[in-house]
Amino acid sequence: MPVNLNPPVAAQLLPVAGVSLGIAEANIKRENRRDLLVIQLCDGARVAGVFTKNRFCAAPVIVAKEHLDKADGIRALVVNTGNANAGTGEQGLQDARSTCAALAGLLGCKSTQILPFSTGVIMEILPVAKIAAGLPAAVANMSSDNWFYASQAIMTTDIVAKAISKQVVVDGVTVTITGIAKGSGMIHPNMATMLGYIATDAGIAQPLLQELVTQVANRSFNCITVDGDTSTNDALMLIATGKSALPEVTVAGSHAYGILLEAITEVAIFLAQAIVRDGEGATKFITVVVEGGRDEDECKKIGYAIAHSPLVKTAFFASDPNLGRILAAIGYAGVDDLDVAALQLYLDDVLVAENGGRAATYQEEDGQRVMQQSDITIRVVLNRGHVNATLWTCDFSYDYVKINASYRS
Amino acid sequence: MPVNLNPPVAAQLLPVAGVSLGIAEANIKRENRRDLLVIQLCDGARVAGVFTKNRFCAAPVIVAKEHLDKADGIRALVVNTGNANAGTGEQGLQDARSTCAALAGLLGCKSTQILPFSTGVIMEILPVAKIAAGLPAAVANMSSDNWFYASQAIMTTDIVAKAISKQVVVDGVTVTITGIAKGSGMIHPNMATMLGYIATDAGIAQPLLQELVTQVANRSFNCITVDGDTSTNDALMLIATGKSALPEVTVAGSHAYGILLEAITEVAIFLAQAIVRDGEGATKFITVVVEGGRDEDECKKIGYAIAHSPLVKTAFFASDPNLGRILAAIGYAGVDDLDVAALQLYLDDVLVAENGGRAATYQEEDGQRVMQQSDITIRVVLNRGHVNATLWTCDFSYDYVKINASYRS
Repeated sequence: MPVNLNPPVAAQLLPVAGVSLGIAEANIKRENRRDLLVIQLCDGARVAGVFTKNRFCAAPVIVAKEHLDKADGIRALVVNTGNANAGTGEQGLQDARSTCAALAGLLGCKSTQILPFSTGVIMEILPVAKIAAGLPAAVANMSSDNWFYASQAIMTTDIVAKAISKQVVVDGVTVTITGIAKGSGMIHPNMATMLGYIATDAGIAQPLLQELVTQVANRSFNCITVDGDTSTNDALMLIATGKSALPEVTVAGSHAYGILLEAITEVAIFLAQAIVRDGEGATKFITVVVEGGRDEDECKKIGYAIAHSPLVKTAFFASDPNLGRILAAIGYAGVDDLDVAALQLYLDDVLVAENGGRAATYQEEDGQRVMQQSDITIRVVLNRGHVNATLWTCDFSYDYVKINASYRS
Repeated sequence: MPVNLNPPVAAQLLPVAGVSLGIAEANIKRENRRDLLVIQLCDGARVAGVFTKNRFCAAPVIVAKEHLDKADGIRALVVNTGNANAGTGEQGLQDARSTCAALAGLLGCKSTQILPFSTGVIMEILPVAKIAAGLPAAVANMSSDNWFYASQAIMTTDIVAKAISKQVVVDGVTVTITGIAKGSGMIHPNMATMLGYIATDAGIAQPLLQELVTQVANRSFNCITVDGDTSTNDALMLIATGKSALPEVTVAGSHAYGILLEAITEVAIFLAQAIVRDGEGATKFITVVVEGGRDEDECKKIGYAIAHSPLVKTAFFASDPNLGRILAAIGYAGVDDLDVAALQLYLDDVLVAENGGRAATYQEEDGQRVMQQSDITIRVVLNRGHVNATLWTCDFSYDYVKINASYRS
């Protein structure tokens, strides 16, 4: 079960002026499942995004990037689950384009004004006819109050839907931000089988919106890992409709930009952490903090070495303070001149290791106490600089293997 | 159970002139277990080794390197299981030195002529008194016929002991090579919780012996991975006693060197593969071949991305040809200019993917057939150069989690 993560409450998800959402059953992989989502945007809405860096990126990722580059003004996003349209070659590109064309026909816009997204099994041909057949129902379903159902429609192996709203006052104007995300496996920095859609009614100019979404991703979705696998399909999209009374934000250093950056990042961190809390088979949510490094690169190297280690992750699953495994991971992280005798390792508030070994004050029962918690912080203090990094991950359980050994069946 | 790996047969393990081995019960972690091994060498025997690159390397690794650097002539190696003496700081160094001193006292040599090795739990203090108390029995047990028992004494979570002998004729002289190894988890390139000891009665000069063991490791132990964790304690030691009639080998390019390199590499590959076949929870032995790369680095990057992917490994456990997961791993391996449309992916003889997607000829039942096997080869043909690399790994099962969630209890 997800670790300290409640499902969203429909009434707490706020509409974003200029955005409406329609859901339908397209029977893509299974019958009787809402597996198709259309997000329609008002005229003048702006969209920016960050995508997977996987070289085998999926066809919809390629097409979405092309369409964003055209800058024709995006009018809608279409998302299907049940099939990732990845590893599908030339046919996959045609299928992603056909999906856009079908929706463009219904909405009376150009194909290039549609962004396609897919998630699900890789290397199977996208059933475009089913999607095209489902689109009219999705369009007919369109409402600004559908965020809750949209968050459910994009789930794959997720147990709990992920959605949140936040309001913030900028220069006297109340601005709304609502976001949804999906993903629970194949989660790694530079995106994951992770789809995230965040919309605000603030107006934010291009290319500032692109800069904003990149900053947001680097502090949220790019700081999580479940299993180290980077998906072919990941995307985080940020929509700014400009429907609020706030004047369009055009300068990165402005007061309004700063408030929006913090608020949108907060929404994104909630969604990113929710993905880890719902990580496949997760029983513990682990925050890895690496402090006092010379640069972000070495902090992240050490953080990811810990967060990816199957030995560390299984020890946390067992609630076993086998903390030498964390030391081993720090040691092989690839920071060649690391002085292991100079660092401290903490488990929450408990000093575990210093001077290259077990801390004199460390008692096994203190480690055991922290390991019983469902939220745990591993803190490594390197004492060689002033840079910090924080990552979020989960443990590694029988259920991870079970879910991934049977995902297709 | 280990994948296609039989236990060694005592009668097939050949003594190596100049090497004798003694085993004892020292009650290090448990009672009634042979957990202490002494390997005594004749005068004039030479030793070289490669060690873990983990910055948190264990105390015995540090001391063994120091003693090798002294070049006083190594007279014995001492190996304990049950405790890794890693993450033990200054106390750990003292303990490793005390162990050497105790054995040196019994053998009448200097401490610096002893190499210490430990394997087992990290971050617990080595019970030196127990080891010192066990050493006389190990010395009394000394015999050149003890390779079989030695291979058993160094096991930790291993299910099957790993040992092999080989004879080869060099310039008319029969040379014997016998090797043992242990390890089944925390296995990664640049060594693993892996200890390997290979001895030959050939004479090989220093520093040529060091060059030889490095070449051997790069083609064997540095090509395996179980879980991507690199241990604090790994070591591969190569002993050349010079007791055969073969003149000492002094030149890397010589005929004798070439024959010995191949024969010792063959022994090392057997032992390295045995470690993977006995990988924690393994049900399948997977060979990953990456062909047609521009350099070894990119071939290994792609090979390890596949071999480390929990999603790929769980799919193999499930015998599910969910081969898109392999494409995803190739895509995120970090080869930035990789043209995914130019490569082919094979599962044994079955062409699975080409032109960026599923091969037109690929039938799911062909993939299914190969996935039922216990030995499987994944072959990636990059078509961008002439360099190849081969790695060996195993799948990821419930039992991996079970073993590592309960190792200390």
